[in-house]
Order: sequence, then C-alpha cells, then structure tokens
Amino acid sequence: MSERKPTTALFSDPLRVVNLGLSSFAETLRASRVPVIDVDWRPPAGGDAALIRIIDNLKSDDEHAWSATITAANEKAIEHLLSAEPHLIGIGIARDVVPGMTDRTLLHAGPPITWDAMCGPMRGAVMGGLIYERAASTPDSAAQLAASGDITFDPCHHHQSVGPMAGVMTASMPVWIIENVTAGNRAYCTLNEGLGQVLRYGAFGDEVISRLNWMQNELAPILSQAIEKHGPIDMRSLLAQALQMGDEGHNRNRAGTSLLIRELAPFLVRLSEPSESIARVLEFLHSNDHFFLNLTMPAGKCALDAAADIPGSSLVTVMARNGTQFGIRVSGTGDRWFTAPAPIVDGLYLPGFSAQDAAPDIGDSAITETAGYGGFAMAAAPAIVQFVGGTPQLALDTTHRMRSITMAESRSYQIPAMGFRGTPTGIDVLRVAETGILPAINTGIAHKEPGIGMVGAGLVTPPFSVFADAARALAESLGKQEKDQMAAS
Amino acid sequence: MSERKPTTALFSDPLRVVNLGLSSFAETLRASRVPVIDVDWRPPAGGDAALIRIIDNLKSDDEHAWSATITAANEKAIEHLLSAEPHLIGIGIARDVVPGMTDRTLLHAGPPITWDAMCGPMRGAVMGGLIYERAASTPDSAAQLAASGDITFDPCHHHQSVGPMAGVMTASMPVWIIENVTAGNRAYCTLNEGLGQVLRYGAFGDEVISRLNWMQNELAPILSQAIEKHGPIDMRSLLAQALQMGDEGHNRNRAGTSLLIRELAPFLVRLSEPSESIARVLEFLHSNDHFFLNLTMPAGKCALDAAADIPGSSLVTVMARNGTQFGIRVSGTGDRWFTAPAPIVDGLYLPGFSAQDAAPDIGDSAITETAGYGGFAMAAAPAIVQFVGGTPQLALDTTHRMRSITMAESRSYQIPAMGFRGTPTGIDVLRVAETGILPAINTGIAHKEPGIGMVGAGLVTPPFSVFADAARALAESLGKQEKDQMAAS
Repeated sequence: MSERKPTTALFSDPLRVVNLGLSSFAETLRASRVPVIDVDWRPPAGGDAALIRIIDNLKSDDEHAWSATITAANEKAIEHLLSAEPHLIGIGIARDVVPGMTDRTLLHAGPPITWDAMCGPMRGAVMGGLIYERAASTPDSAAQLAASGDITFDPCHHHQSVGPMAGVMTASMPVWIIENVTAGNRAYCTLNEGLGQVLRYGAFGDEVISRLNWMQNELAPILSQAIEKHGPIDMRSLLAQALQMGDEGHNRNRAGTSLLIRELAPFLVRLSEPSESIARVLEFLHSNDHFFLNLTMPAGKCALDAAADIPGSSLVTVMARNGTQFGIRVSGTGDRWFTAPAPIVDGLYLPGFSAQDAAPDIGDSAITETAGYGGFAMAAAPAIVQFVGGTPQLALDTTHRMRSITMAESRSYQIPAMGFRGTPTGIDVLRVAETGILPAINTGIAHKEPGIGMVGAGLVTPPFSVFADAARALAESLGKQEKDQMAAS
Repeated sequence: MSERKPTTALFSDPLRVVNLGLSSFAETLRASRVPVIDVDWRPPAGGDAALIRIIDNLKSDDEHAWSATITAANEKAIEHLLSAEPHLIGIGIARDVVPGMTDRTLLHAGPPITWDAMCGPMRGAVMGGLIYERAASTPDSAAQLAASGDITFDPCHHHQSVGPMAGVMTASMPVWIIENVTAGNRAYCTLNEGLGQVLRYGAFGDEVISRLNWMQNELAPILSQAIEKHGPIDMRSLLAQALQMGDEGHNRNRAGTSLLIRELAPFLVRLSEPSESIARVLEFLHSNDHFFLNLTMPAGKCALDAAADIPGSSLVTVMARNGTQFGIRVSGTGDRWFTAPAPIVDGLYLPGFSAQDAAPDIGDSAITETAGYGGFAMAAAPAIVQFVGGTPQLALDTTHRMRSITMAESRSYQIPAMGFRGTPTGIDVLRVAETGILPAINTGIAHKEPGIGMVGAGLVTPPFSVFADAARALAESLGKQEKDQMAAS
C-alpha cells in the first residue's frame, strides 16, 4: 500500500528538514523551530576530483564493490584478521626475544623518526630509557647520547612490536610474548607501568626508573612463572569478555585487567616466591586498570601482521603515531608508511593542565582501533566518556559510523548494547579515502615537554591525507601489477 | 510555527496507528502493513473501581502527588534507602551473629511457610541443611525431622537476613556481615556456593554437603582473615563500579566478583595460611561469577531495613518468595506480609530441562530489585539477556519502565548507557497499585523436585494482588492514624 502525496502537501504540511553538510547551514531554520536532522555529509574523496577518478577506476561493474583483484585480496586479508587467535604465551627480555633487538637499539612508537624531530614526551622517554639501561646517568648525558648517532632508533612496528604513547622499548625491558596460533606469528609489548609519572608519557624521574627496575626484577619474573604454570592464555576470550563488561580495550581496560588478575591469582599464590613479593605484584595489578592495554595491543598487532603484505588488499594494517607524524600502512602496499603531521587530541585534561600543554597525538595504541576494538568498540564502553570526553550517545554513534569504513564484523568481539553485533573490523583505506569518514581513535594525552607525563585523554581524528596517499599508492601498485601481468603474458 | 493539518489529510496521508492495550487489537492493521506502535496500556488499579477510589483518596490536591502525610513519610523512607552505606565488615558463624539464631532454627527465603507447604527445592534445601548440621544422616531421616515439629522454620527476613533461592541458613553456616554505617544496622547472608548442584537450588547430595563443609572449614576462615586485614569494604562503591561493567547485581555478577577478587587477593596472599588453601579459595571465587550476589543481597537488605517501619510510607521494603508464595512488606505497614501464589518464571532452560520442570518463583534475591538494582538496572547489563532471555532492548525498556513505579534515582548506582542516570530506586506500592506496572525481577529457576538443582534463569512478574492488598492496608492504616489523631485532639 504505497500512496503518492500530492505536491501541495509540501506547502500545507509542517516543514521537516534534512540538512546535508555543515550543521551551520540550517541555523536559520533551527532558530524558527523547524525540526532539522543534520547529515554529516562530505564530498566524496575530500572533493579531490583526481582521487575520485582513481577510486572509481578500482570499482567493479557494481559500483559499490571493488574490482575482483581487490575483492579477492581483501577477502584473504580480512579472513587472516578475523581468524587470528592471539594467545599470551609468556614474558621474555626484549634483547632475547624481540627480532633485531640489540643493546644499542631503542624502539619507539609510530613511523620512523630521528632524535631531532622527536616531540618532547618521546625525547623524555628516550632519555629515561637510556638511564634505565645505565647507558647514561643523567637526563642531559642521555640526551647527548641520543643525539650522538650511537643509538639506533627504530619503530616498534619494524620489530613485530607495539608500544603505547612514546612506546619506548630498550634491550633489558621485559616484554609480553603474544602468539597468533592461527598463523604462528608473534608480537611483543612492554608491561604497562600505570598512569601519571611514567616513561611512556615522557617522564624519566627516579620514581619512573625505580618502578621500571622493580618491573624487571620482581613483577616480570613472577608473572612469567605464573603464566608458565597456567599455560597459554586465550586473549581473544579475555578481550571478548571484557567488551561485554564495559571495556573497549584501549582506554578502558578495567574489566580486562580484573579478568587477568582472577585468572592468574591462583597460579601466583602457588609459586615458591616470598608471599610479600606476590602480594606486591597483585597490588600493582590492582592499582593499574590500564595493565591490560599492553596485552590488547600486541594481540591486535599479531592479528594484523597476519593480514599484512597481501598484494591488492586495501586493509589498513597499522595506524601509529610518534608525536610528530601520524602514519599508516596498508596490506597491499607492504612496508611503506604514509605519514602526515600528528594532530592534537580533543580531550579531557587532568586538573592544572589544558590543551596548551598537550603534545600531538602519540603512540602505537591505535593498533586496537586498527584491529577492530578501542574507539571502534566504544559502544561497548559508554562509561569511557568520563575519561575521554563526550556522551554515551557519542560512543554508540562512533561504533556505528565505523561500520561504513570497515570490511567486516568481528566474530569474537560483540557489543551487547547493539544486539551482540560484532565490532566493526578491518579498515578499508579505499572506503576512508572515498567517504572522508576517518577512523575514530581514543587515546591518552602526554605533556609536550619531556619529563612531565600524562595530562589527559581524549579523541583524535587522523589526517585524511595519509589515507588518500595510501589509496593512490595502492591504485598505482594495482596498475603496475596489471602491466607486469600483461608483459608476462 | 504550528500549523493545523486539514482534516482531509487523515484520509490522504498514509495511516500510522497508535494501539492502546492488547497488541492483538492491531493485528489486522499490521497484516495490511500499516505501521503500528503498541502502547502497553492497562486500566488504572487493574480495573478495580474500589481500589481506584482508595488510591484517589490518598492523593493531594495535585492529583499526581500523594497526601502530605504519605509524601513526608516517603521522603524520610527514601532518604534512608538512598543514603545507606553498606560495608562488608566480616564473616561470622550464623549461630554467633544472626539475631535469634539457634541450633534448631532453620531460616528460609520468602514469607513464613510450614514444611507441609514447602515446594520441592525448598524441601531439598531443608533436608540438605539438616544433613549438613548432622541433625540427620539421610535425606529420608532429614525429611522426618523437618516434619516432626522439632525444627523452627523462620524467614531469613525475620532475622535481618536474606538468602538466594531456597535461602536456607542453618546455625553452623558462615555468613557475610554487612553493616549500613549510616544507620548502624546489619544484615546477613550465607556465602554463595556456585551454580548447578547446590543447596540453594534444592540439591543435597554428597557433593553439596562436602562443598558446604569446605566453605565452613577453609573458605570462610580464610576470607574472614583477609577482610579483617583489609578493613571494611565499601559495597556501594564496588556495586557502583560493577554496574558500569555490565553487572546488574542480581543474575549478572561477573564484574562484582572480579572486583572483590582483586580487592582481596593481596590480603589473601599475606595470610599465614598454606598457599594451597589460599589458591583453592581464589580458584573457587574465580569459578563462580555469582559469588558477589550474596553480598549485593544483604547490602540491599540493610539499606531497606533502615527505611522500614515508617508509618504512612508506601515504600516497598521486601519482595521475597518461598517457592509457594510471593510476599511483600511495605514500610508503612511494618512487619505484615502481603502474599499470593508464587508465579512461574519465564526463562531460558539448561539443556534437557523445560518449563515443566520448574518450581515456582523462589528466593530473597528480589531484595536487589527492591533496593534499586537487579532487574531495575538491567539497562546496565545488556549481556544478561543471554542468561535470562530477551533482547538488549528489553533490558533498556525494563529499567525505563521501572521509573514509573519508583520514588527516586539512585545517587550511587548509575547507568552509563542512560547518560549516567541513577537506577530507578524505591518501589512505591501505591504507584504499582495505581498503574498496574509490576516490578521487573530477574531470577534463577530451580527444579520443582527436591535434590536436583538449577534448571534455568529468567524473568518473573509478581502477582498484582499483593501490591493491591498492601495499598489497601496502607490506606486503612492511614485512616486509623487520622482517627487516632482526632480522638487524641
């Protein structure tokens, strides 16, 4: 039963308006109390006509689907991501387990960067890392060493690793070892230090160094033994439960941390270590609701690494920031980084701090969003808005919006409030470039000066250009592939 | 800008229908694909004209408010409920700490009941309780003793106590001691045994009795020492956190249990008990996500007891079921029970069981709903529908509906998904009687035969008549009060 409305109804019925684009277009109507629905419309491909043509050329006859080559490559890539089974298998010392790690290597978050170009908190963390390694005894001598050229700086991502915020990993640091048992590859991450005055936020004072020493000498050996007794811990199961308990796996990890504690506690108690040491370990875990973050990150990393380097695939495999540059990698373009200046985070600040104190966006923790949780699962964690700002509705909207730029829904990570739908998983760089809808990342905020630490947390919008650049490069690689095939035939 | 629609629009515009009352009224329209919104409308006071008059007589000039006497009484009652601060202060043995407890007393859930009238699972739990106390050695001799008149059966609620499901408490059982530090009153509850073959679901086999013995001899003494070292634990804070982590405090307590474990673990480790014993305690807690239920229940009980016995108040202070009768108590009518036959639970069944196996609604656990969480906080716990049935939308709707029959919003317990609004708290028996909207309770389901145990979980609708009866009795008490005042003046 469909009835056509007479045209005159447009004039006799009350006005109801759908506004495309900037919300301010409809201000006059709103002032006259006309109901207006804002549609956050953006011109395709950011209005870049050349990019529109490039993207259109990658489509199949069905204008909503990509070419057969891309579709096949993406099916393969997303299946690797969705079927990954990250297991926590143990703790090792970076120099012993992280590929390519040496006593003179210092890993950091984000795309490659030199000492000169590093932001304040990353410099602070580098200085702290060198003091922790006893390669320098003061912040000044550490800065000199860092500038001397004797230290090899390298992204964590080049070593199957990830690091939150500054992401500094040095040779003596204990690291989580996560294995993707589906594909057999591994990922590594340091142990989380807690909030406030901590290395990853660029602090390097005595408190920071002695905590790192304690983590190396007591926390890690004890946890390592407990994990050995327990056997591998299925991170997918823990994270799936945590998402049903108000976590999103990036900035809210209270449930995940709790689940890890209860899983390990009986095994900790049975160790033949002094009970005072075991109690200190349990107290440290209890005092740090972010402890689980350094497990969700390498869990995401080893899942995404399994989906990397598939020619033709538009799956984003890395989003990472070094506090100076925001960078991404895409499966079909392999190791290549696409970078742009790191943006400023829009967030809530700790008392006494404001946006003027903030360093630009920093950290490998956006690996969580890349893997389909974190900001992409905000709907599972409405309480997080008390930490990063916004409203519970924003949390729902964010997850909903991410469905437009992702390839699939997670088969493991569900959102009860959305009828148990899977989290939006697998960013399609071509969809981002086409729609201009950018991945939603929630993150901590470091002070812009070295040595200070955390000042807040919030939401950040990545630069569009990195996705546009990657889309162009992917298109080029596909063109080249076709030419090679023609030449070979 | 408001414009009147011409009457002819009714015929030219497509039909959109709002249907009041039974959903089936609109079946024909729905079959013709006309959009229909069902409004769950019920006649006032269940259509009972005499009750409508009684309720109307209790109103002030403003027809939405109760008389000044009731309003003042309710303000006092709800303030006692909202300001209660339940603290876990320790564990004791029932005979030592529960008022009026003797070696021949057996407490049970719900309103008073005799052995003859008890349902299967309550009989099973009584038999198990007597075997556990070594007052009988076999189920048969236990049943004979129960029938002999030598055992005093009494509701938990008559002894500042509450018990889930059958709610059986005997003299030797360890009990949680919760103190409402605002008013100084205390409440008691046994420790939770886990799911499946357990006493509270009417099972009494060897497995059940040996678990109860272990709880008495190892679990309780160890937990008791840890709590003593820790000091009082603020239950309001734990429950508030749990509600932000997907619990509702009745049938979903995974977060609360996790938070309790991480709070106590360091103190457990520091005890001079064998580490194997401490490990067993931690394993038991880890294996039982309902462990926290037996803390949320007495937390609610001591909050509500502080709001009891206020003449004129229409606050419901108890909802409890013994598997035969559903009973409530109201602040303004004191100790009096209003009862009706216990309903059948609408729920999800464990494999191999169906509604035909179910005992009627049983347990004191509806104290959680009475105190403003449990079913009333379902919106905080959308994942619970996997346990009790329904959809995440049902969870939201349920909490929303409870706002119509409650006096206030909790100042402590918030629901992130509802913009951090407080949970609907403090059932107004007059609003229930007036609107016919019944409190939403979610609950476990016991097998109807003794000795079997849990068969499922679900949602239950209390009988309307208990609220109608209580409303009439409250009106009577107010009439009497007025007469007494007139006689005295």
